[in-house]
Amino acid sequence: MERIPILRIGDLLLVTIQVDMHDQLALTLQEDLTNRIAETGAAGVLIDISSLEIVDSFIGRMLGNISSMARVLAAETVVVGMRPAVAITLVELGLSLTGVRTALNVEKGMDLLRSSLRSADREDGDAGSEA
Amino acid sequence: MERIPILRIGDLLLVTIQVDMHDQLALTLQEDLTNRIAETGAAGVLIDISSLEIVDSFIGRMLGNISSMARVLAAETVVVGMRPAVAITLVELGLSLTGVRTALNVEKGMDLLRSSLRSADREDGDAGSEA
Repeated sequence: MERIPILRIGDLLLVTIQVDMHDQLALTLQEDLTNRIAETGAAGVLIDISSLEIVDSFIGRMLGNISSMARVLAAETVVVGMRPAVAITLVELGLSLTGVRTALNVEKGMDLLRSSLRSADREDGDAGSEA
Repeated sequence: MERIPILRIGDLLLVTIQVDMHDQLALTLQEDLTNRIAETGAAGVLIDISSLEIVDSFIGRMLGNISSMARVLAAETVVVGMRPAVAITLVELGLSLTGVRTALNVEKGMDLLRSSLRSADREDGDAGSEA
């Protein structure tokens, strides 16, 4: 059980974090996820953290890193399911998850990704017509 | 982290089992899942076991129980992501997960659920016209 499963749902990937993240697990997840994005050409990544009771600076940084890596591979990341208490602690710790998009739950995250993918398509279209 | 999260995706619920199941966790999952089916009126449940390296008689029985409970609440269950090695061991142990439907991955499981929900709707329609 040393791997966090990555589920493919249409053109999105879904990761549910349920266990305490330690260094090696975080590295494995980053590697697996970037590989899966490259293999599948996924356009979006959803990371569900509804099980996590604590998000410390380590996990905060990991979420930021995953989000940046996915962006370089042309996929958007949305972190979903954060508990209210976690949001409070994060801000009190001075962490605001800069560069990480969030949504209340998986469904809202999917909607967010799909609408931003559609608008990205439109922008690509516009850029094309300007060129 | 004593709870396994249940994610809602449209009219389906998705459970990813990543940790070793012990008695209490299995009971909590059964309780949470039946509550969520009742609350949301979900028509289908997907249980992803792609992280599990071993499915013993305890987990096999739990999957069967969840499937039966969901059926009583008018929801269908599909177990997805079983590793080939797990399938081999299961059969060697004399367990064949009777009454549990399976699919190779989450996407195929969703397709299976949606097509069986559509045919159930049709049958309801037929029964209605016969009455």
